[in-house]
Amino acid sequence: MLSLNGIRLSDLVDHLGGQLIGNADHVVYGIAPLEHADANSITFLSNPKLRKKAGETLAAAIIIKTGDAEFMQQSPYQGALIVVDNPYAYFARAAQRFDTLNQQPRSPGIHPTAVVDARAQVAASAIIGPLVCIEADVVIEDDVQIDAGCFIGRETTIGAGSHLKPNVTVHHGCRIGRRAIFYSGAIIGSDGFGFANENGRWIKIPQTGGVRIGDDVEIGANTCVDRGALTDTIIEDGVKLDNQIQIGHNCHIGAHTAMAGCVGVAGSAVIGKHCTFGGAAMVLGHLTIADHVHISSGSMVSRSISDAGQYTGFYPLAKNADWERSAAIVRNLDGLRDKVRALEKIVQKLTDTEP
Amino acid sequence: MLSLNGIRLSDLVDHLGGQLIGNADHVVYGIAPLEHADANSITFLSNPKLRKKAGETLAAAIIIKTGDAEFMQQSPYQGALIVVDNPYAYFARAAQRFDTLNQQPRSPGIHPTAVVDARAQVAASAIIGPLVCIEADVVIEDDVQIDAGCFIGRETTIGAGSHLKPNVTVHHGCRIGRRAIFYSGAIIGSDGFGFANENGRWIKIPQTGGVRIGDDVEIGANTCVDRGALTDTIIEDGVKLDNQIQIGHNCHIGAHTAMAGCVGVAGSAVIGKHCTFGGAAMVLGHLTIADHVHISSGSMVSRSISDAGQYTGFYPLAKNADWERSAAIVRNLDGLRDKVRALEKIVQKLTDTEP
Amino acid sequence: MLSLNGIRLSDLVDHLGGQLIGNADHVVYGIAPLEHADANSITFLSNPKLRKKAGETLAAAIIIKTGDAEFMQQSPYQGALIVVDNPYAYFARAAQRFDTLNQQPRSPGIHPTAVVDARAQVAASAIIGPLVCIEADVVIEDDVQIDAGCFIGRETTIGAGSHLKPNVTVHHGCRIGRRAIFYSGAIIGSDGFGFANENGRWIKIPQTGGVRIGDDVEIGANTCVDRGALTDTIIEDGVKLDNQIQIGHNCHIGAHTAMAGCVGVAGSAVIGKHCTFGGAAMVLGHLTIADHVHISSGSMVSRSISDAGQYTGFYPLAKNADWERSAAIVRNLDGLRDKVRALEKIVQKLTDTEP
Repeated sequence: MLSLNGIRLSDLVDHLGGQLIGNADHVVYGIAPLEHADANSITFLSNPKLRKKAGETLAAAIIIKTGDAEFMQQSPYQGALIVVDNPYAYFARAAQRFDTLNQQPRSPGIHPTAVVDARAQVAASAIIGPLVCIEADVVIEDDVQIDAGCFIGRETTIGAGSHLKPNVTVHHGCRIGRRAIFYSGAIIGSDGFGFANENGRWIKIPQTGGVRIGDDVEIGANTCVDRGALTDTIIEDGVKLDNQIQIGHNCHIGAHTAMAGCVGVAGSAVIGKHCTFGGAAMVLGHLTIADHVHISSGSMVSRSISDAGQYTGFYPLAKNADWERSAAIVRNLDGLRDKVRALEKIVQKLTDTEP
Repeated sequence: MLSLNGIRLSDLVDHLGGQLIGNADHVVYGIAPLEHADANSITFLSNPKLRKKAGETLAAAIIIKTGDAEFMQQSPYQGALIVVDNPYAYFARAAQRFDTLNQQPRSPGIHPTAVVDARAQVAASAIIGPLVCIEADVVIEDDVQIDAGCFIGRETTIGAGSHLKPNVTVHHGCRIGRRAIFYSGAIIGSDGFGFANENGRWIKIPQTGGVRIGDDVEIGANTCVDRGALTDTIIEDGVKLDNQIQIGHNCHIGAHTAMAGCVGVAGSAVIGKHCTFGGAAMVLGHLTIADHVHISSGSMVSRSISDAGQYTGFYPLAKNADWERSAAIVRNLDGLRDKVRALEKIVQKLTDTEP
Repeated sequence: MLSLNGIRLSDLVDHLGGQLIGNADHVVYGIAPLEHADANSITFLSNPKLRKKAGETLAAAIIIKTGDAEFMQQSPYQGALIVVDNPYAYFARAAQRFDTLNQQPRSPGIHPTAVVDARAQVAASAIIGPLVCIEADVVIEDDVQIDAGCFIGRETTIGAGSHLKPNVTVHHGCRIGRRAIFYSGAIIGSDGFGFANENGRWIKIPQTGGVRIGDDVEIGANTCVDRGALTDTIIEDGVKLDNQIQIGHNCHIGAHTAMAGCVGVAGSAVIGKHCTFGGAAMVLGHLTIADHVHISSGSMVSRSISDAGQYTGFYPLAKNADWERSAAIVRNLDGLRDKVRALEKIVQKLTDTEP
């Protein structure tokens, strides 16, 4: 990423902190990986395995940890050093700065093709894109941006500074916090899956709860967060959901928990704070998961988890022929166990009879 | 959920049946869980584990089974009893009544921003929302509601009383039954995944079948039901599909079958009536599944199932360190089995040689 | 599928090749499966198991391999034979011909309700449907069709002959090749899932790469392909993605690879050419998969694969009671292995002490 507008290294450090060693007046235009960086760009060293590569980078400046300063100074590297506590987080903030610098200027207002109910309250600083539909009693707070094709149902509030990308759907009666980013195809507040069975037929249970979402939440493309049945579905501050995720009705997701793509969480699951879920992990309903639990990709969480830690449960991949052998044994594992038990008994008898 | 409009208990029982014991004139305004219910709300007791909690509820009325009447009458509970056969189904119907009572009055007609082909037939009682696109030769029957941003392709029929939530896509040549509810982001009648391989390249097979959907079918948010290749994909009456589901081309899903979120069904699978699929269950193509089969969440159905019953197949979750040990053994289960066989032989020999 | 416009068998063979045996002047109106075909339709024999059924088909013509000609000539079958190398691919091409013949004539131009930026370049031969939004500096090449409700972000190029079905979203700065087909709900170029963790909070890493897609690529309904973080996500020529797929940022998918529904590929995975992925297969991030690798449905690819071949990894399905027994043993497989080891030692000692 090379941008049109550059930043002096001294300005970067003034804004983001860190100790600058080198030419403070050098202007950089973007961030690049170690091997692609040049005199116009800065780079970063976060993974210790990449130290050697870092020593050879042509970047104008490199963001490093204190512990790497000596190594870099003794390496062939000639550019500036920005010494910080957490180079990866610093890189993220620096990238945000370049991004902001090069953003399109957009003018507040409601596009003439948007359909906005007369009873909706839209802040003067908000941007409502083309072909958007906003129903009655919606509140759109300051500096919100709602892109083309979005739908916002009646009585929903979108908190200040939030950004809804094109073709997002937020249903009625939801409360969205500040600085949310919802990606295209996300569906917030659709009905939960609730039915009573009566003689083999399904009777729909109206889903009359809503969805409450804290501040700084991101919801990925084509991800769904269902509304609650009687009470609300709750997503706390700082939660990050990737694409293609399903969050069932009445789930409660603790602050700063992150879920990778294709995760599914069944209804009424209560998930702690600072958890992470690998891609395609699945959580059954009505479970409770403690804070700081990490679920590996592709794992099915079928019981509550009360201790922090890493949990895993997927079947190991193998050449198909090997899988067929293993799977056949798994199907009859109790047979194998019974054979071991029988052997144990006979061996016991044999050793008993030994002199 | 507390609504503006209340219902007298006697009116509720007049409409929905059941035996009322207590003050028939009491007015209730909604339904609440046992622990949140108060003098304005009714609640229900369906799960026997909650009996004790039910005895302490402050609800104005409680829906119970015959067998629970004596217990409730001896408990501290002071409100009315509604004695029924199936309290959960009764709760669903009561909730529907409150929901209907409090629904927004909406007026039939076509929103001026909707793009409706001159050759489409739209019933006078139908509601077509803003920014909807309806192509030629579409038939929209009585009392249909099509919300903002939906697309209906040519020659498709939407049955009476159906409701398409915002941003639903129904492609050409589909027949949708009565009282359907399609949730936002649902895609009906997209092309099935059909290709012939020729020297390593994929030649597309046009998907010229359609989708036929019975009455009282619900299709969840961001769920896809593909059109058939040469003949139709069929979903029978009363089927309920949750969010993020994929139904491949030429599948046939029997009446009153329900699937939880993230289920995938590959092409040409034939699934019986009254089946249930837990979340993220997967079904391979060209399989046949009998009526009354229940598949547990996260299970891969890799062969046909001819007997009713519950089937399961997911890898048990464990602490990551434990998983690594077990997974390593699973990878080499045939080695373990061979060791057991070798032991059996030696032990056999040992016992044979014993005096 | 029976179409209004028929084709003489001789015309079909003139266009698509193959050796015609029988009445060259016979006109057919569509393609049907062996058992439904009649004097108006052609059919095909690809699966050798269906030979007997083929002998009894009433089709006007049948597409067969050379090796099946003798069998068919000695069967009761009376229609024409079209003898080809690859009957299934020939069937696909014949179906394409019928499909083309019967397509609605559509007239180029921009629908008056579409919102097209003055700085977008739209070819005169392109069709832009109702309620489409096209931002500045977009390039829409010749013969492109963009259906209702699509969004195309600034500076994106859509290659000649591509077709975007209703409600597709393509974000800014993407390059789409020729003859692409994107199905409804597909999201191309949404932000990748990139965050740096700083004291338990997630700092967003701006996703400044784009998406580059080759020629002849199909992307299924509700499938997401994320944009890259610093460099591009790349999908090569001829790739076919089914519905509900997630492709993470900076993935690189080799030419002519096909993925069935619900597949997930985490960020930075590099996948070879001519691979296939069964439904719901999952690929972890930063892996490399060789050309001609085939992953079975429901398998989790948790390590790189350097050899072509078929790989599998899902837990075998069982009656629930059987599963509970096996799963309990899997959870404690190391216990079982330890017992076998202990037995081995004792048996070793027993055989050693034997005379």
